[in-house]
Amino acid sequence: MPKIKLLIAYDGTAFAGWQVQPGARTVQGELERCLEQLLGEKLFVAGSGRTDSGVHATGQVAHFETARCRVPPHKIPVALRGMLPPDLMVIGAMEVPENFHARFSAVRRVYRYRFRTGILYPHERNAFALFPYPFECARMEALLPVITGEHDFTTFSLKDSAGESRVRNIYHTAVEAQPGGFDLVLEGSGFLRRMVRMLTGSLLQVYPDPDAQQKLQQMLDARDNALSGPPAPASGLYLERVDYPPEFC
Amino acid sequence: MPKIKLLIAYDGTAFAGWQVQPGARTVQGELERCLEQLLGEKLFVAGSGRTDSGVHATGQVAHFETARCRVPPHKIPVALRGMLPPDLMVIGAMEVPENFHARFSAVRRVYRYRFRTGILYPHERNAFALFPYPFECARMEALLPVITGEHDFTTFSLKDSAGESRVRNIYHTAVEAQPGGFDLVLEGSGFLRRMVRMLTGSLLQVYPDPDAQQKLQQMLDARDNALSGPPAPASGLYLERVDYPPEFC
Repeated sequence: MPKIKLLIAYDGTAFAGWQVQPGARTVQGELERCLEQLLGEKLFVAGSGRTDSGVHATGQVAHFETARCRVPPHKIPVALRGMLPPDLMVIGAMEVPENFHARFSAVRRVYRYRFRTGILYPHERNAFALFPYPFECARMEALLPVITGEHDFTTFSLKDSAGESRVRNIYHTAVEAQPGGFDLVLEGSGFLRRMVRMLTGSLLQVYPDPDAQQKLQQMLDARDNALSGPPAPASGLYLERVDYPPEFC
Repeated sequence: MPKIKLLIAYDGTAFAGWQVQPGARTVQGELERCLEQLLGEKLFVAGSGRTDSGVHATGQVAHFETARCRVPPHKIPVALRGMLPPDLMVIGAMEVPENFHARFSAVRRVYRYRFRTGILYPHERNAFALFPYPFECARMEALLPVITGEHDFTTFSLKDSAGESRVRNIYHTAVEAQPGGFDLVLEGSGFLRRMVRMLTGSLLQVYPDPDAQQKLQQMLDARDNALSGPPAPASGLYLERVDYPPEFC
C-alpha cells in the first residue's frame, strides 16, 4: 500500500483541534473528508501530534495509506486546493517508505509562540498572544535554561496520559525579537499534551517575579501540574516544523 | 456640545465596511450602538473616510457630538472594552474643539498594503494579500513615481462620485521589505472610493510587463476607469493613520 506524507498548514481558530471528535470540526476530519473525495476510498490520516483548538500550524506533518494512489502524490496539493476549506492547506505531498510514521518517526518538533507587547490589534487577535508586562528580552532569556534539556515535565502537562513517561528533551529554546513583540521558539523531541501552552503560561506567571528562575525551577521539580501557571492562549501558538530522518524527507 | 475624537482599530473581515447600511454589520453601526449604550443618548459617528468590506484599520479616526459626556473622554476606551465585539477596538478618545471634523479636518491619510510573496498561509489569509509574481523591490519602486504627486485619479476610482473633483495628491509612496513579503505604503491628501485597491491592482497588473511604467502612465493619463486593473484584494489593506493639524491632536 503506497504511503503518502503530507505537509500541512492551518488556521486553528475555527477548528476544535487536530483530532477527529464526533460532531466537531477538526483538521484531521476535514483532511480525511477531502482526501476520501479525491481518492475515492476510506482513509485514516495520522498526524505528527495533536494540536489544541485555536493552535495554528505552518508545518504540521501527517501520513495516510492508500490502496492505489490514483492521483500522483506531487499533484495532491493542487488537486485539494479547491476542495479544502480556506483555513486549511496541503503544502506538499510525497510518497514515503512504508516504515514511515508521522508521529513515531519524528525526531524533532518546533513550536513558535508569537507575542505582541503593548497593543494587540483586532486583526491580530487570533494570530498572536498579548504579553501582559513590559518586555525585556534578557529577562525572558534568563528563564529558558531552566526548561532546556531533558526533564520530567509532569508539572507542565495534562493528567490524561497517566502511566506514560513524562520525560521529554527540549533541545533548543530562543527568544526572537520581532516588530511589535517577540517570538518564543521551543524545539524538542516531543511535547506532552498542552505542554507548550502550560510551559509558556508558567514563564508568563513567573516573569515579573524577582526570583523568577527559582520559582520556575521549583515548579519543574515538584512534578505536580497543580503548580503550573494557566496555559497561555492558543491564539499565538504555531506548530512550525516537524523533522524526520533523511530517508523520509 | 462636547465633541469627542476617537482613535479606532478593526479587523475588517466580518464587517460590511465602515458606513452604516440597513441590515449589514458595519464598523460605524457597531460603534454607534455601543456608544449609545454607554452614554445613554442617540449618536452619529463620523469617520475620516469609508473603508470597504474586508479592509482593516489600525488608526481610523472618527468623531461624535454628545449632549453631556457622562463618561470622561479618556475613560471611554476602557469603558467600551467589554461592550465592543472582539474585532473592533477604541484605542483612544479625547475632547476636541468644536470645529474639528474627522473627515474635513484630515490633512493626510496613510494606507498600508501588506503582501506575502511565495506562500500565503491559512492563518494569514485575511490579513495579507498574495503577490502573484517573483518580487523585486526595485521593480516595484520604479513604478511609484508615476502615481506620486498631484494627479487626476479618475482611472483608479469608482464612477459613483460623478461631478466631484478626481484630483488628489499622493505625498509619499514606499515599498518596505518585510519577512515573507513586502508592504506598499501610500500617503496622500485623500483617496477616492476604492482608489487604493484599484491603484494597487493596477500596479500588480503592469508589474510583469517590460514597459510597466509606460503602461501605468497611459492608464493614469486616460482618466477612464475601464482601464484600471482589477482592485487588489481587501484583505491586505490597512488604514494606518490619519493626520490632523496640531490643534486637534
